Amino acid sequence: MTDGSNIGRRSLIAGGVAAVAGTGLAAQASASTLPPNELKGYSLPLSAKGEANIVGAPPWNYVGDLVGVEFWTTPEAAQAALPAGLTPDPTTSGHGYALFIDWQFTTGDRQDYLDPVRSQYSEFLVLLDARFQTTNVAWCPFIWVDNDASLARGWFQGFPKKIGQVHQTRAYAVGSKAAPVLGAGGTFAGTLSAAGRRLAEGQVTLANTIPNLPALSRPIVNLRHFPRLKAGQYDNPAVHELTLSILDGVQLGTTWAGTSKLQFFPAPGEELADLRIMRTGQGFRSTLSYSVSDLRILTGPDAG
Amino acid sequence: MTDGSNIGRRSLIAGGVAAVAGTGLAAQASASTLPPNELKGYSLPLSAKGEANIVGAPPWNYVGDLVGVEFWTTPEAAQAALPAGLTPDPTTSGHGYALFIDWQFTTGDRQDYLDPVRSQYSEFLVLLDARFQTTNVAWCPFIWVDNDASLARGWFQGFPKKIGQVHQTRAYAVGSKAAPVLGAGGTFAGTLSAAGRRLAEGQVTLANTIPNLPALSRPIVNLRHFPRLKAGQYDNPAVHELTLSILDGVQLGTTWAGTSKLQFFPAPGEELADLRIMRTGQGFRSTLSYSVSDLRILTGPDAG
Amino acid sequence: MTDGSNIGRRSLIAGGVAAVAGTGLAAQASASTLPPNELKGYSLPLSAKGEANIVGAPPWNYVGDLVGVEFWTTPEAAQAALPAGLTPDPTTSGHGYALFIDWQFTTGDRQDYLDPVRSQYSEFLVLLDARFQTTNVAWCPFIWVDNDASLARGWFQGFPKKIGQVHQTRAYAVGSKAAPVLGAGGTFAGTLSAAGRRLAEGQVTLANTIPNLPALSRPIVNLRHFPRLKAGQYDNPAVHELTLSILDGVQLGTTWAGTSKLQFFPAPGEELADLRIMRTGQGFRSTLSYSVSDLRILTGPDAG
Amino acid sequence: MTDGSNIGRRSLIAGGVAAVAGTGLAAQASASTLPPNELKGYSLPLSAKGEANIVGAPPWNYVGDLVGVEFWTTPEAAQAALPAGLTPDPTTSGHGYALFIDWQFTTGDRQDYLDPVRSQYSEFLVLLDARFQTTNVAWCPFIWVDNDASLARGWFQGFPKKIGQVHQTRAYAVGSKAAPVLGAGGTFAGTLSAAGRRLAEGQVTLANTIPNLPALSRPIVNLRHFPRLKAGQYDNPAVHELTLSILDGVQLGTTWAGTSKLQFFPAPGEELADLRIMRTGQGFRSTLSYSVSDLRILTGPDAG
Repeated sequence: MTDGSNIGRRSLIAGGVAAVAGTGLAAQASASTLPPNELKGYSLPLSAKGEANIVGAPPWNYVGDLVGVEFWTTPEAAQAALPAGLTPDPTTSGHGYALFIDWQFTTGDRQDYLDPVRSQYSEFLVLLDARFQTTNVAWCPFIWVDNDASLARGWFQGFPKKIGQVHQTRAYAVGSKAAPVLGAGGTFAGTLSAAGRRLAEGQVTLANTIPNLPALSRPIVNLRHFPRLKAGQYDNPAVHELTLSILDGVQLGTTWAGTSKLQFFPAPGEELADLRIMRTGQGFRSTLSYSVSDLRILTGPDAG
Repeated sequence: MTDGSNIGRRSLIAGGVAAVAGTGLAAQASASTLPPNELKGYSLPLSAKGEANIVGAPPWNYVGDLVGVEFWTTPEAAQAALPAGLTPDPTTSGHGYALFIDWQFTTGDRQDYLDPVRSQYSEFLVLLDARFQTTNVAWCPFIWVDNDASLARGWFQGFPKKIGQVHQTRAYAVGSKAAPVLGAGGTFAGTLSAAGRRLAEGQVTLANTIPNLPALSRPIVNLRHFPRLKAGQYDNPAVHELTLSILDGVQLGTTWAGTSKLQFFPAPGEELADLRIMRTGQGFRSTLSYSVSDLRILTGPDAG
Repeated sequence: MTDGSNIGRRSLIAGGVAAVAGTGLAAQASASTLPPNELKGYSLPLSAKGEANIVGAPPWNYVGDLVGVEFWTTPEAAQAALPAGLTPDPTTSGHGYALFIDWQFTTGDRQDYLDPVRSQYSEFLVLLDARFQTTNVAWCPFIWVDNDASLARGWFQGFPKKIGQVHQTRAYAVGSKAAPVLGAGGTFAGTLSAAGRRLAEGQVTLANTIPNLPALSRPIVNLRHFPRLKAGQYDNPAVHELTLSILDGVQLGTTWAGTSKLQFFPAPGEELADLRIMRTGQGFRSTLSYSVSDLRILTGPDAG
Repeated sequence: MTDGSNIGRRSLIAGGVAAVAGTGLAAQASASTLPPNELKGYSLPLSAKGEANIVGAPPWNYVGDLVGVEFWTTPEAAQAALPAGLTPDPTTSGHGYALFIDWQFTTGDRQDYLDPVRSQYSEFLVLLDARFQTTNVAWCPFIWVDNDASLARGWFQGFPKKIGQVHQTRAYAVGSKAAPVLGAGGTFAGTLSAAGRRLAEGQVTLANTIPNLPALSRPIVNLRHFPRLKAGQYDNPAVHELTLSILDGVQLGTTWAGTSKLQFFPAPGEELADLRIMRTGQGFRSTLSYSVSDLRILTGPDAG
């Protein structure tokens, strides 16, 4: 077991966050397959100027406040949530994290944060311990965001994003009964709803600072998947490949940890609650930033 | 010029709506490429039960009320909005439609309409006259919906959907100052916003019934496009193919037509207003239903 | 017991809907108490032109599609939900209705429906049988809407509106698997959420038409209540009076009735689920329109 | 001219924020006017347990991040926006502030921030310099929030709140291209939309810290106004009184100031853009907290 070291790390910050990166390959210049005179843009809609696409080409820069809960579901439930190609980590069976994050993002050097209605979003995701071959990884079975550009970026990485409503308790720079202390004794909550139904809620009560962000100790594996609609081809997706997220320049703020609570609730069209919470572990609250401009493909024709 | 007849029509209803279909091929059973023990589902997230995916496998059934405006932009603007592989229709240069539709949908035989918060959405789209080889088609440069399942279904067909807020005037079964007459003299409006900015508004004042739905006289061509995130591969999309929508079992309600107004407004990250409205033509209001279970691929390795 | 006849009816339509009205009093011209040079408008914000107010002066015209469920809670729960001044109706103890309505509205003769984002809203409300003195009335303990103008109009009438998300199954003018038949066998649902939590859901399966709209057989009594914020005066509201809704020109479309289901769900800050559903009765689906331009005050200094 | 000193101040924090308070009066115990056996609660809906009301009784505690822009409209526009009882401040004619605030609130000692979907909201408001008799005050002509409880609390104080969508750039505790520096050179934006139309946008670029929050140097005067719906009484509101906001325990975080931009945009049903921006002054960004449990009534029967 190599704990990701054979995958390579682009950055390993003092806080201990594992930012996983490609194996030192320079990005190869590839001949574009786009036809001559094609419309411009990275994603749909391609257009005359290339400004209308839901997401422009990377790099994508992110910064967010995070409320996280470590949890254990049953080994059976965790295993049932893994895709082909991943296996349970026998040493941490059923172990995972639930994360609520309030993000702000920008593409490249643009000051997208000056149109905050377009550049802010909130996210909830689950990570489950798993193994790819002999490497410890984290698998993201479910994730919700409240922004379509984020949904698109997620799909391009393999994050299986759906639209949901995510909220987390905020800390402020002055004291108030209306906010917890960002320090020992402060309690922060996160909540997720979709289609008007509460799907998840978590709480953390802070006790002490810690040097690492627990949830990012393993590289994240996703499944890029884009189906075919051609009759008879529904089970023959156009894209179907395990991927490894690459986070550049990860920075971590002061990370507080303590106790935690977590609940998942059943709803039509959702399987989150099948990850039955057996117990929770550490709760934590931090701020992190990173950039994304690459993705490693682990399986399929593009693997390497 | 064949006006679509070489593409084939699965249904051609009395109202004259052209529902375009595959050329009589039975759906071929294809060997699945999914790995053994793969998670279940048609789209992301794949999951243990296959119930969590944002969209289940077709057939997808739709019914909607539609407010539409015929318009002309400049030939230059229309041409600039066409993808490689499509050319302007020289006989109708700059001609198109703006459509506001309040949809209800269901997958297969499920009564999804009993959870209306998940099965209703509103849509705005633009169609521009174009040609694929010698066939008259309609190209959809821009489309917005307010529902993530609809966004996903759109992407799988090539519709370049983004999230927006779409509203249209409703007709009711009793008289009221609060609603227009669904008949001569009644005026209906449609509006589109995204990110809190008004992007489009249209109005139609009804005068008489017509036998056809003008906007569906040509088959719709889209661009299925799913980019790569691998460094150096941003211009080498994993999927990039022109597609032809196939609408099964189209039914059309009474269609009223009359005069119209239309405005597009500029906004950051949008190019809709580059389709400058030179004049409008017929306005119309109808109800239509159809199903989708197939897609014809016009270009690329899957074409045929 | 007079069943409202001593209150007076302004209209009594063929469908049997009781539109309750003032007792023939001409509206008295009253000296305005507004100071000279006051800003203009009916409601906040008063402004230079009088166009910015959240709601302009009546008449307010409404038209809506309605899905309703007759239910019985316990007599105790129903009684506990009544304000001072109302008593249980001993003959129908615990009886009430849950209504989901998709509204379109306009003020006066304006064509507000041409800006549908501002003139449409959805509503859920509960009505409980009660008596005011010897008159049979319906009391509205809880009501949610998704529009601030509607919230304001509600408060001015005494409807205790909060913001919620309300959806109902729609019928369409053409057949589709995506919509129920508006007729025998068709099933329609309504749902309510607030703050991302499902609060109520109901279903009706239509069997036959009926001449009346069951839920409007009694005049609606509300509590107009506007608190003071002055310290020591929190329990001394500035306005606190029972009111009787007056609906002018009620029109009712074809009304279908059949069987029904209904559930209320508990949530923080809500007491809806304390109205425990013991059983349901008739379910119904209709369309109705009316106008509001007056209110009868039953108690307090303005009574009469 | 007394600059508020005859009104009294409950707190005057080091930062120079003027928290205006009642003149040392103990809150008088007042006999409640509520009928015996009345339902419980401070605001609608009154209910059996008193937990369902949209807003519980004060104290209400607030903490928020604020982006503000000082501006000048024309003296004529400012004067036209003043209610009867207020006069222009001849020394600062046309001067005002536009404020974007991301709030978190709680009632009393409850940890409402643990259900953040209910306890967070964003706000945009305008303040205009004015005089009440000889006292310098700030008048709030227009204000939008995205939360119904906040709307209700606003109305009880006289703030003329409507529902809008308000966003502001966020600062984070770690560096990122996705966020401005909270310090010299950092640029923050705020935006307001309602009904899908952009109504206002502002920007501030920080240069240096300042000791005071400019926008709170004058006590805020509002108009509590609750109309009658009785025919003939539309111009005879049940409540119509100028009020003076009382902010307890104001705390101010580090306040940065610099240059600014501001734009108001016209829209149907809005008069904000009639406050034509002639020029802007100081831009600022801060964090503040306070509590509200009292209100001074300046005019009408409850004045004193």
